[in-house]
Amino acid sequence: MIEDRHIILAHGNGGRFMRELISEVFARHLANPGLDVDLDAAPVAIDGDGTPFLSTDGFIVQPLEFPGGDIGSLAVNGTVNDLAVCGARPHYLTLNAFIEEGMEVEQLDRIVASLATAARTAGVHVVAGDTKVLPRGQGGGLYLATTGVGVRPRGLELGMHKIRTGDAIVVSGPVGDHGVCVLLAREEFEISGDVKSDCASVLPLARAALRFGGLRFMRDPTRGGLATVACEVARHAGFELRLFEKTIPVRDSVRMVCEMLGYDPYYLACEGRIVAIIAADEAQALVADWGRTQSGEGAAIIGKVRKRGNKVVLETELAGERILEELEDDPLPRIC
Amino acid sequence: MIEDRHIILAHGNGGRFMRELISEVFARHLANPGLDVDLDAAPVAIDGDGTPFLSTDGFIVQPLEFPGGDIGSLAVNGTVNDLAVCGARPHYLTLNAFIEEGMEVEQLDRIVASLATAARTAGVHVVAGDTKVLPRGQGGGLYLATTGVGVRPRGLELGMHKIRTGDAIVVSGPVGDHGVCVLLAREEFEISGDVKSDCASVLPLARAALRFGGLRFMRDPTRGGLATVACEVARHAGFELRLFEKTIPVRDSVRMVCEMLGYDPYYLACEGRIVAIIAADEAQALVADWGRTQSGEGAAIIGKVRKRGNKVVLETELAGERILEELEDDPLPRIC
Repeated sequence: MIEDRHIILAHGNGGRFMRELISEVFARHLANPGLDVDLDAAPVAIDGDGTPFLSTDGFIVQPLEFPGGDIGSLAVNGTVNDLAVCGARPHYLTLNAFIEEGMEVEQLDRIVASLATAARTAGVHVVAGDTKVLPRGQGGGLYLATTGVGVRPRGLELGMHKIRTGDAIVVSGPVGDHGVCVLLAREEFEISGDVKSDCASVLPLARAALRFGGLRFMRDPTRGGLATVACEVARHAGFELRLFEKTIPVRDSVRMVCEMLGYDPYYLACEGRIVAIIAADEAQALVADWGRTQSGEGAAIIGKVRKRGNKVVLETELAGERILEELEDDPLPRIC
Repeated sequence: MIEDRHIILAHGNGGRFMRELISEVFARHLANPGLDVDLDAAPVAIDGDGTPFLSTDGFIVQPLEFPGGDIGSLAVNGTVNDLAVCGARPHYLTLNAFIEEGMEVEQLDRIVASLATAARTAGVHVVAGDTKVLPRGQGGGLYLATTGVGVRPRGLELGMHKIRTGDAIVVSGPVGDHGVCVLLAREEFEISGDVKSDCASVLPLARAALRFGGLRFMRDPTRGGLATVACEVARHAGFELRLFEKTIPVRDSVRMVCEMLGYDPYYLACEGRIVAIIAADEAQALVADWGRTQSGEGAAIIGKVRKRGNKVVLETELAGERILEELEDDPLPRIC
């Protein structure tokens, strides 16, 4: 039994304390047929009929818990979503935890429980893991990394190379929720709000989108937000994108906080949204389908692929134009 | 181009600085046909004829560079070795880097170059990665995590369940080198020595061992060292193991440092050794084969599986007995 209520260095030593931490906190919540904490490596079954995909992501969000999620649910959904937007169905996750000496075991337990719930929701098994303990002062509480293995069905192809002039740009819901939620949760500013993170698996949204033959490309707009996804597409696919300020969904509360603190919501992280590029004649149907999905409320057509080029132009509500540039500084460190 | 010679927060923002860091440091060294830094997830080919294995490991060693290796080579070999001792051939790695603001780009570049060399040596491709930047004071320079995918040939079976009374315990070379090397590299004690880390891929050793039909089980004795592997086998397989102090290879320099500082070399980490359990009548041949392998110099039979039970007994050079207990405290934090 874990006698101390805080993490000590011996929890990282490979001996008794580590074994107890792993069995009482990690294995207890994450138990599944594929997880054997006594193995160095886990055997898995990978469907040979599709293409396996690997994805990995690190998580350093601060605070560790925030309205609508925590670093545990974020760590599952972040990697699940990276696979989902490639058209792959996630099957397995591995987990790395870097825990700072002094962390409350109770908080760690809550976070691992939340991680396990997110994994069950997304239908993925955590089959291998590793824990390290960082001496006090050399870690920010808890850092996580997850790596996912998924399989994309044979014949399915998505990617920037499929984008064509005239395609529509669609988003599955309001942008900036996660960024503003985390910002407010830090309580560095004397404002409060009821903004919840959108942290969630986008698998149901991806599944709905994959039914459209005209679907070209999907991405989840995390670090750097919607504007960063648009800039990447412009740069790599070689197009000028137009975004319509009027139709980009942003919650009033998010807009208000951004105006007060000088943030641009288009650059703030989402953790449960998809930006999709799709043939223009199917865009309205995708918005309708997403609108009927639990997490697709507020889905909208927000722009179009205008012509060859390499820039992102925002058409403002007052019919002006503003170039959305690639992010230079970091507006919000430790956001995901 | 990276103008600043130190990592800044903007290197983690998802925008221009991050893109440049990834392309100029990570992608430059790690370039391979499977790596496309613009993708959220990487497609891979997994041989459907064997069993795929997943393994993951985190790395927090301090100092980041030490004689015989660095956190980069350690991060590759640590995960490669976990797959190798399961009998799997590693194919792909993913990489997470948590970089502290203020780190010298030059040092990061050296470490990634070393990581790339270790990956080439082991024949693995780094196909996906993620970088996060930790604000100054919230990280210990650099933390890494790697996840590996390998395939174990059909029909091959290894595991603690195969261990039988009378089996021999074999180690592929001297123990404790890595632990003592890192300890000395910290320069906290007024002693110096020429101990090099044994950090290396154990794939050639594993390949040699897999030719023996009587091979039961392999493990690489990292955190917690040889004694911890022995304790795990005793506990999980339910045997009493006897280790012979007289035959356990320990370098004189390692033994001397341990005596001066009060460490037990049997509990110190190795990063390029295998402990194998094998049918007694094949043990001598395995030692001979390992002895002919570059990294198997000093291989020796060091013990036997004596009877059902759950303890590890060390037969001392003076014909006494000492119980090797499961590790309680952490003798050396940030060792791997």
